[in-house]
Amino acid sequence: MATTGQKLIFRFEEGDASMRDLLGGKGANLCEMARMGLPVPPGFVITTEACRQYYAAGRQLPGELWPSVQAQLSWLESATGKQFGGGDNPLLVSVRSGAKFSMPGMMDTVLNLGLNDVTASALARLTGDERFALDAFRRFIQLYSKVVLRLEAAHFEELLDTAKQDAGVTSDSQLRSEVLRKLIASYRDLVLKQTGRSFPTDPWEQLEAAIAAVFASWSNRRAIDYRAHEGIPDDLGTAVSIVSMVFGNLGEDSGTGVVFSRNPATGEPGLYGEYLANAQGEDVVAGIRTPLKVADLRVRMPAIYDQLNSLAQRLEEHYRDAQDIEFTVERGSLYILQTRNAKRTASAAVRIAVDLTEEGRIDRTTALDRVRPQDVAQLLVPMFEDEDLAGARSDGRLIARGLGAAPGGATGLAVFDADRAVQLAEMGRHVVLVRPETDPDDVHGILRAEGVLTARGGITSHAAVVTRGLGKPCIVGCEMLVVDPSARRMSAGKTVVREGDPISIDGASGEVFLGELKRATLDLTQNTALEQFLSWADNARTLGVYANADNPNDAAAAVSMGAEGIGLCRTEHMFFQTDRLPQVHEMLLSAPETSRLENAAEAEALEGDARSAQDALAASPIARRFREALARLEEFQTDDFRGILRAMGERPVIIRLLDAPLHEFLPDYEQLLVEAVTLRATGADSNRLDVVERQLKETADLQESNPMLGHRGCRLGISYPDVYEMQVRAVLRAACDLADDGLATNPEIMIPLVSDVAELKFLHPRLDAAAKAVLAERGRDIRYLFGTMIETPRAALTAGALAGEAEFFSFGSNDLTQMTFGYSRDDAEGKFLNYYLHRGILAKNPFSELDREGVGRLVRLAVDEGRRRRPGMSLGVCGEHGGDPSSIAFCHEAGLDYVSCSPFRLPIARLAAAQAALGLVSSAD
Amino acid sequence: MATTGQKLIFRFEEGDASMRDLLGGKGANLCEMARMGLPVPPGFVITTEACRQYYAAGRQLPGELWPSVQAQLSWLESATGKQFGGGDNPLLVSVRSGAKFSMPGMMDTVLNLGLNDVTASALARLTGDERFALDAFRRFIQLYSKVVLRLEAAHFEELLDTAKQDAGVTSDSQLRSEVLRKLIASYRDLVLKQTGRSFPTDPWEQLEAAIAAVFASWSNRRAIDYRAHEGIPDDLGTAVSIVSMVFGNLGEDSGTGVVFSRNPATGEPGLYGEYLANAQGEDVVAGIRTPLKVADLRVRMPAIYDQLNSLAQRLEEHYRDAQDIEFTVERGSLYILQTRNAKRTASAAVRIAVDLTEEGRIDRTTALDRVRPQDVAQLLVPMFEDEDLAGARSDGRLIARGLGAAPGGATGLAVFDADRAVQLAEMGRHVVLVRPETDPDDVHGILRAEGVLTARGGITSHAAVVTRGLGKPCIVGCEMLVVDPSARRMSAGKTVVREGDPISIDGASGEVFLGELKRATLDLTQNTALEQFLSWADNARTLGVYANADNPNDAAAAVSMGAEGIGLCRTEHMFFQTDRLPQVHEMLLSAPETSRLENAAEAEALEGDARSAQDALAASPIARRFREALARLEEFQTDDFRGILRAMGERPVIIRLLDAPLHEFLPDYEQLLVEAVTLRATGADSNRLDVVERQLKETADLQESNPMLGHRGCRLGISYPDVYEMQVRAVLRAACDLADDGLATNPEIMIPLVSDVAELKFLHPRLDAAAKAVLAERGRDIRYLFGTMIETPRAALTAGALAGEAEFFSFGSNDLTQMTFGYSRDDAEGKFLNYYLHRGILAKNPFSELDREGVGRLVRLAVDEGRRRRPGMSLGVCGEHGGDPSSIAFCHEAGLDYVSCSPFRLPIARLAAAQAALGLVSSAD
Repeated sequence: MATTGQKLIFRFEEGDASMRDLLGGKGANLCEMARMGLPVPPGFVITTEACRQYYAAGRQLPGELWPSVQAQLSWLESATGKQFGGGDNPLLVSVRSGAKFSMPGMMDTVLNLGLNDVTASALARLTGDERFALDAFRRFIQLYSKVVLRLEAAHFEELLDTAKQDAGVTSDSQLRSEVLRKLIASYRDLVLKQTGRSFPTDPWEQLEAAIAAVFASWSNRRAIDYRAHEGIPDDLGTAVSIVSMVFGNLGEDSGTGVVFSRNPATGEPGLYGEYLANAQGEDVVAGIRTPLKVADLRVRMPAIYDQLNSLAQRLEEHYRDAQDIEFTVERGSLYILQTRNAKRTASAAVRIAVDLTEEGRIDRTTALDRVRPQDVAQLLVPMFEDEDLAGARSDGRLIARGLGAAPGGATGLAVFDADRAVQLAEMGRHVVLVRPETDPDDVHGILRAEGVLTARGGITSHAAVVTRGLGKPCIVGCEMLVVDPSARRMSAGKTVVREGDPISIDGASGEVFLGELKRATLDLTQNTALEQFLSWADNARTLGVYANADNPNDAAAAVSMGAEGIGLCRTEHMFFQTDRLPQVHEMLLSAPETSRLENAAEAEALEGDARSAQDALAASPIARRFREALARLEEFQTDDFRGILRAMGERPVIIRLLDAPLHEFLPDYEQLLVEAVTLRATGADSNRLDVVERQLKETADLQESNPMLGHRGCRLGISYPDVYEMQVRAVLRAACDLADDGLATNPEIMIPLVSDVAELKFLHPRLDAAAKAVLAERGRDIRYLFGTMIETPRAALTAGALAGEAEFFSFGSNDLTQMTFGYSRDDAEGKFLNYYLHRGILAKNPFSELDREGVGRLVRLAVDEGRRRRPGMSLGVCGEHGGDPSSIAFCHEAGLDYVSCSPFRLPIARLAAAQAALGLVSSAD
Repeated sequence: MATTGQKLIFRFEEGDASMRDLLGGKGANLCEMARMGLPVPPGFVITTEACRQYYAAGRQLPGELWPSVQAQLSWLESATGKQFGGGDNPLLVSVRSGAKFSMPGMMDTVLNLGLNDVTASALARLTGDERFALDAFRRFIQLYSKVVLRLEAAHFEELLDTAKQDAGVTSDSQLRSEVLRKLIASYRDLVLKQTGRSFPTDPWEQLEAAIAAVFASWSNRRAIDYRAHEGIPDDLGTAVSIVSMVFGNLGEDSGTGVVFSRNPATGEPGLYGEYLANAQGEDVVAGIRTPLKVADLRVRMPAIYDQLNSLAQRLEEHYRDAQDIEFTVERGSLYILQTRNAKRTASAAVRIAVDLTEEGRIDRTTALDRVRPQDVAQLLVPMFEDEDLAGARSDGRLIARGLGAAPGGATGLAVFDADRAVQLAEMGRHVVLVRPETDPDDVHGILRAEGVLTARGGITSHAAVVTRGLGKPCIVGCEMLVVDPSARRMSAGKTVVREGDPISIDGASGEVFLGELKRATLDLTQNTALEQFLSWADNARTLGVYANADNPNDAAAAVSMGAEGIGLCRTEHMFFQTDRLPQVHEMLLSAPETSRLENAAEAEALEGDARSAQDALAASPIARRFREALARLEEFQTDDFRGILRAMGERPVIIRLLDAPLHEFLPDYEQLLVEAVTLRATGADSNRLDVVERQLKETADLQESNPMLGHRGCRLGISYPDVYEMQVRAVLRAACDLADDGLATNPEIMIPLVSDVAELKFLHPRLDAAAKAVLAERGRDIRYLFGTMIETPRAALTAGALAGEAEFFSFGSNDLTQMTFGYSRDDAEGKFLNYYLHRGILAKNPFSELDREGVGRLVRLAVDEGRRRRPGMSLGVCGEHGGDPSSIAFCHEAGLDYVSCSPFRLPIARLAAAQAALGLVSSAD
């Protein structure tokens, strides 16, 4: 091994908080505190570089490392006045992992290292507490065997349990010295048997092996998985801190605890935490004794409390953020073992950021950097009480786990179809809709349910998208459930839930519970800290924030959440309402024949001679039904648009014309087929069979192999221009009605799924004529725009040409992602996509976070070429990505004018846009 | 109307053949012939510019045009010595349409203009043939009423029929003068009744209206449709030729005919054509009298024959191409009315091009420009005899028409499922497979059928693609057929065809016939002219020409058709063979569980401790079945690859790893569902029900909403790496076997459906290790490459990164087109795509002709960025586009190394590549 000349070890005094890359978070903070003169036990840090060299050399410690360790350890002996591996005052150390980014519990640590028979005896003499020394030795062997020797921990636990049984005690701390001595002997026998070698008695051998084991723990399975999940690179490596041990279990004047400089649950100022007298850190974790509130320390050890409080304040001042501090009191002396920025709830994060700003500790930019955008969303949905959740997890009420698709806790009676959900809801019951998966036919049920649970589908499946839009809790892809709507039941293993049984779902964690869990009371629309905080975000950001909203209620919610416009109003969602579906069916089933007749008549008109096709068109009962259905739908749509436009006033409202594949509006094909075949086989109910056969045929005609790439969007609008013309008339009629009431509005009409400018050239003049006809009839002059979705790769690739016709672009990033990757959203997430994410083949789900290399490249290209052709045109994103912070940062960088997301994600978008504008997120994030 | 100062009229003497833009093809050739001193009746041409001005002014003749027409007409009077609208020798003219590009029969022409009572009488006196003059007058009124007055032609036909009935004659020419005089009177009454005005007697009025009507005919429906179909721009306009009339119906020394300078059917040198004595041109068309062969003219009018022959030679010499010449003999004088390059069969085109080159008339480049690449393909499939075809069309045997998907004529017994096709074929019968549509389950039937007919699907549907690959005739999208496989019948209107009834299909025209049509005997592999011609093409082209071939037979056919390699060997096609499907099922159904166990074991291995998952994997019967199925498939595949590699020798063979969605290999879900529901309802055969329920469940698990974008291609390879490793081993084992026989080969392995380089990074090392293991075991060093398909937009957008891993690229232009447009090939062609093409929203079907703006842009980008990262890497196209001339021209321009197409399209590709290299096609074509 060649000497690299790099310094591989830093004493705490030599490092500082800026050196996280090299010393890890824990090590860098220990250094910083030592520099500040805080009471940190002496020690030193082996760098992450040493770890990287360890891996580069095929898991061998760098040759130059060991002499340095030895040198530092003799310095540590002199600094502590103790001796490693011997003497009257033996030096024990902890060997702690600690990487640049916190990976709690993922890597290994060894405590009490340096113990053997000789040092254990010395420790017993020194402390006058033999039991303590033997217990420390026992713990050391057990931990070292697991972490360094990689022996099965269970074997040691068994021996410990046997010893406790034999001694007739229940807790480790009740074991007397003799028993501990025997236990140590049996531990050693076990090690000899399993490894063929005696447990190492040489502390230097212990130390060298422990350092290597901590390095190795960087690459254990759970650490790899955690990094994959958190997006932490695999090549950083971990640092190792060697810290002289201090003991909190040396009597009642000793103890250990964790404090926060502010309450991490609420953000309330003041010291907050727990303390356990005569205990080591792991006892707090083990939960055998109930710790005291740290406030009690004020009474029991007022000097320690004051010292702790002032240190916490100093650390908060120093780090300019709330701190999470581990401390130990050894016979009346306080030691700080770790400090880090406190993990906190979303609510606390906002409160702390605002308070620190108002206390003058941080500026607004720093405050805006302190809260993760996705956490803000948590503040706006009801969650279960932590305590009830914890209880339910451990007492068997937790029955299944799926993908958390929309956060929040929902409880209600399980129902297995949408109609039944509506029925029960109308009877005043809360329901949770459970389905194998959902489709647009279920929307009326989803609207009335507290939450939705599906056995299939991914986080952008129908259920997930709809519920997120509604701000309702949802779990999808809960594969361990067998949902049987026909039997009105579901089962999870042996547990069966029938219609009407109460269940609870946690849409953040993806957990399904039996019974009703308690919900925490939150009224965060009254959260003044949040309002303050978001107003700072609004001042900072340059990107506009629009909402996706399909009805007046959502539009009103959007405005209250800060929407500056509606970026996507999906007109087909209005079609799913019960009173409209019959008209929609009528329209769809009569459209093809009507269109055929119209085309024939148009061809004749061009020829300029015969009138037979025109006569046929005029006389056709199908064409008449088509027009009547259209006329009724026009009334409905005019109502809808009036409500939405009224809610939004002069804010722009972008209304997308019919986009969904037709068969989504029709009965389920498979269900009809099953009914038809059953009726055919049994010969029962021939009237019903006739109806079903007809519906089956109609539905079969509209089936497609790949509906996502089929006859939808503007392709429908071109096949049946009357439908789009009806929608355009409804928009303009609504705007005229409001103008009559003295209200100015800004409707913008969007044509979906375009892949060639010829589609716009066909539709734009026809639709513009329909709009102008309404205005002429009403004698109004209302500004309106026609634009297009950019959602096929070809639309992006030909954006320059499209901008010649389209007055604005909106990137439909969901479809654009599907087509750019060639991933069907509906299929990929249930099948290979999870596997890809798990394997790290994809770092991120591209349906959650906009893919910059592929999709992003198309977006940038379309932005450039669109603006070149039509300077100043408005450009936005209206897919799911509009509510994702990283995607929002991309939108900011790409120069878009706005993002549009569901109303409940608006606070996320406002903060993310501010962070992007302030340069708080890099494009690599 | 402002005077533009442009010359709007050219006398024949003033123009020449180069002025097609301005004078139209017909007018320019008349001018050229006049210049050459050929006997052309005097006349002049009104330019296309006048037509464009007519439209620009809202269908008004340009103001300056009429005085010029009058001036030219008085020149024409003096040139002919006749008088327009009066005198003893009245001047009659024809008013003929004629655009830059030939649009046969699409626009209107008026003959005999200038007739009224006065001039008709004069004509009768002059010719001494009153019947002739009255008949000319009658014809004029009839044609003028239709073309200029836009009256219904049928009304005039009725009056004519009545007159013939009353006179007891069957032919127009038998009507005597008195009858004709009455008929003229009733024609005039009809015009008065329908228009409220008398038929115009003023020849000047007739002329002005006729010119306007011919201009207007540029925009009639059929002309618009024709232009859309042929890709002719709509803004060119037509020229109008005004030609003094000559008459072939003035007795036995008069006549009319059409000759070709070489036989247009065979290309044989020598005058060829038809002649009808005492007749006008339209009589030849009407087909009442059988014309003579032009050779007979040699005996009857030897001087005229010699003159005609020498004029034909002169015109061919002049135009340097075979000519199609219209002529009229008026009382012993020969007039040439039109010449144009002769339309010819594909066979004749090649023969004429080769002969003209060898006669020294044209050079090889010109010869290569004279044959359309797609025509070459016609030479290689058997076609029906023209005569039998014509008969079948008129005698009721023609029962339906669909989309001609693969050319050629096939006859055989109708069968409605693939198994039955195989059965009958094995009994030595020829069969035509008829299906609602086909899928991979039908391939064994397609392989044994003479041709395929489907009711649904477009020209790139499964049936179309497979049959084109096989060079078998195919008709798809024959929507007027109702195909009922369960009843073993189809119906077209009232005609019912049952299994075993003989039918014939013409895959070029899309026509379906009852009974067996005769096939023309062709043995064009012996066509020396074609071989000569294609060898010139090979010398000229720079683009490589590879074939798509999946089995040894196709590979051999490809070599005989000139393939320089295999660009796409689809391994899944091998899986569909009857003896392999059970192994494929076994493999697919056991893969998920095996993969789960393998992943668990791999995770444990990483942890380095427990071995329970590894034990479970070793003990699993499912995993064992999986491995056994794989092992058997490996033997099959090794055999397959050995055959293909042997056929190709040192030519590169690109083998694509498994790509198809899994459910394609499994039983049809809907069929299983119907069977299960029926069995459930009837309670019959519970054993069978158990089997069906299990299959139904297995199949349901593999159903996808959008299989095209689902779990296929490398996504499968990553989920189940054993499958790809097996295929790679089979390729290398085959290559080693051949090396043992002393045969060098060049296998290249292609990974499909990549959308991120991480997929290649995952697969490449695994597959490379599998390959190297085979070579090590066999002690061989065989060159092989790993490359990737570029078929998702994202693959193209990240081509630079992909080229870091992939050693070659092959553009899968079918999928790339689907995803770039967002069109599902399976759905689009049956639904909106035909409508788009019909409406001109798309000028071309992007699945037939590579879209340059969108797909082409991605291809160019990937070519640039791929080569930048890996200079010299091989790049090709292997989609359907590889056999399309325009797409081949694009591939040449984009700098690709080769195109790959089905063996039967190789001659097309060879010629198209040559034309591209010679600059004979522009990128706009």
